[in-house]
Amino acid sequence: MNTSKDAIAVGVDLGGTTVKTGLVSMSGEIRYHNKFDSRGAEGPEQVIKQIADSVTDAIAHADGRRTIGIGIGAPGVVDNNGFVKAPPNLLHWDSIPLAAELRQQFHDVPISVENDANCAAIAESKFGAGKDYPDFLFIIWGTGIGGGIILDRKLYRGPSGAAGEVGHICIDHNGPLCGCGARGCVEAFIGQKYLSERTVERVKAQPSSLILKLVQGDYAKIEPIYLSQAADAGDELARSILNEAGTFLGVAIGSVMNTLDLRVSIIGGGVSAAGDLVMDAVRDSVRMHVLKPLRDDIRVIQSKLGNNAGILGAAGLVL
Amino acid sequence: MNTSKDAIAVGVDLGGTTVKTGLVSMSGEIRYHNKFDSRGAEGPEQVIKQIADSVTDAIAHADGRRTIGIGIGAPGVVDNNGFVKAPPNLLHWDSIPLAAELRQQFHDVPISVENDANCAAIAESKFGAGKDYPDFLFIIWGTGIGGGIILDRKLYRGPSGAAGEVGHICIDHNGPLCGCGARGCVEAFIGQKYLSERTVERVKAQPSSLILKLVQGDYAKIEPIYLSQAADAGDELARSILNEAGTFLGVAIGSVMNTLDLRVSIIGGGVSAAGDLVMDAVRDSVRMHVLKPLRDDIRVIQSKLGNNAGILGAAGLVL
Repeated sequence: MNTSKDAIAVGVDLGGTTVKTGLVSMSGEIRYHNKFDSRGAEGPEQVIKQIADSVTDAIAHADGRRTIGIGIGAPGVVDNNGFVKAPPNLLHWDSIPLAAELRQQFHDVPISVENDANCAAIAESKFGAGKDYPDFLFIIWGTGIGGGIILDRKLYRGPSGAAGEVGHICIDHNGPLCGCGARGCVEAFIGQKYLSERTVERVKAQPSSLILKLVQGDYAKIEPIYLSQAADAGDELARSILNEAGTFLGVAIGSVMNTLDLRVSIIGGGVSAAGDLVMDAVRDSVRMHVLKPLRDDIRVIQSKLGNNAGILGAAGLVL
Repeated sequence: MNTSKDAIAVGVDLGGTTVKTGLVSMSGEIRYHNKFDSRGAEGPEQVIKQIADSVTDAIAHADGRRTIGIGIGAPGVVDNNGFVKAPPNLLHWDSIPLAAELRQQFHDVPISVENDANCAAIAESKFGAGKDYPDFLFIIWGTGIGGGIILDRKLYRGPSGAAGEVGHICIDHNGPLCGCGARGCVEAFIGQKYLSERTVERVKAQPSSLILKLVQGDYAKIEPIYLSQAADAGDELARSILNEAGTFLGVAIGSVMNTLDLRVSIIGGGVSAAGDLVMDAVRDSVRMHVLKPLRDDIRVIQSKLGNNAGILGAAGLVL
């Protein structure tokens, strides 16, 4: 007999390089998952077929548990009608009604599509570091800087579903040019590509740094993971760059906290994995920038969900 | 016979120098109002008595219309229990339960207390430039830079009622020191005091400016109103300073729009009264900083409610 405890949701984490799909229990356990290389270069039709196949495969492993819905986390902007718009790394994909396409094949269960950073925020809220906090800002610090805003335990999507673009908060009106065309976006300081470029410049000026040894002298190979390794080994330059990067992120988080009366920020993504050094810098910077009445309760927390956040958050859309 | 159309609300605009109280109809007309010099220097007891007297006077002029509630807009932070905390220019006022105090005297009507910038945002939403926009950022540009956020036609207060402190959005992590202790808050660039200081510096370097003539050579008298007058008369320095100030404000507004997926900002307060020149600069700057998908629908609108916004917004709390 199925009880509601036996019910299960399907979560799909659609990325530029992989499609990861899992069966998620009400309490956030992943009971089964599959993973395919994304066929993003072949156009939306192939990707939709891949998603459908991965969902069918997952449901086939549900062992009689009732599937209560299918959630999909997608890159790019997801509008209020489930259209996925211009996702990076998925070619020939202008604006695709992903929810409607999948409903044609899975018409007996609710289907929900949401931006991937928003899904990761939902994952933190339901299953991760945000469980104890009804209101927080989630930040994903990777290639770009994305975000999701949880207010009163619900995702704040904004009027058109585009809320949470905190990577384009300006922290220096005279700052470096961002890919978006504006100057001084926090992403233009610390998004992975920009952070790597900043690091290359600094290492050129100080080539004795361990960073250069870790990439065997090949500047083109410099990226944040080596910053992190060098910092762990005590390299002063790496520590200084990570400290500065955390400080920059804290400026942007402080602006959001002052605007929304928030006290909690949860940070995930590759660069945040550098750990205490960078997180402490973020914390100090946030405390410096938020108004005094907010300052005492500030929490800046590292995500622990890791690679599963995508599947969990997507399933969280329908759980 | 009273119909709901005859019902009326009392709105109190409590400021550092005046207490203004009005009777406001359902459609936002002020049917009666009084105004007293605030006895803020004499401590909270006197101020509360003043508010009570002004409300009693207003209700006495209601001509038989039913009073449906009393709303009070107060400076400082107003928490979720109607405590007014550390309002500037009201002395010996640490944390006062203003709503509860007034309920003792007016126990037969609902009483609501809210921060003054939030009240002004409500006024715009119900009766002003925001009537047609369910979601917008309101900014009050005066001595400081305050704000109020309207989402889905409702005020967003935040978990503790402190939301909307957009004056402390950082637009330059290396910028000038703000009164709050942080560097580069937009208020530290363009709040009235800071803008005056910036103007003094610029006029010293260019004393032929009309600004110096308007203050009869007295640098201590330089303030934004003369900037505005000089700009209207074609003074290039004044125009350049106002243009820069509007650009700075636009940077902060752009950050909020990217975060919250907003397209509309309504700007009130003394400096915004400088009009097209400064508003055009804000607009250009916002468009530069918001992400491309938001850019086409951007509206930056000057408030038209003027001095009545305080009374209207306070009444709007209970209308």
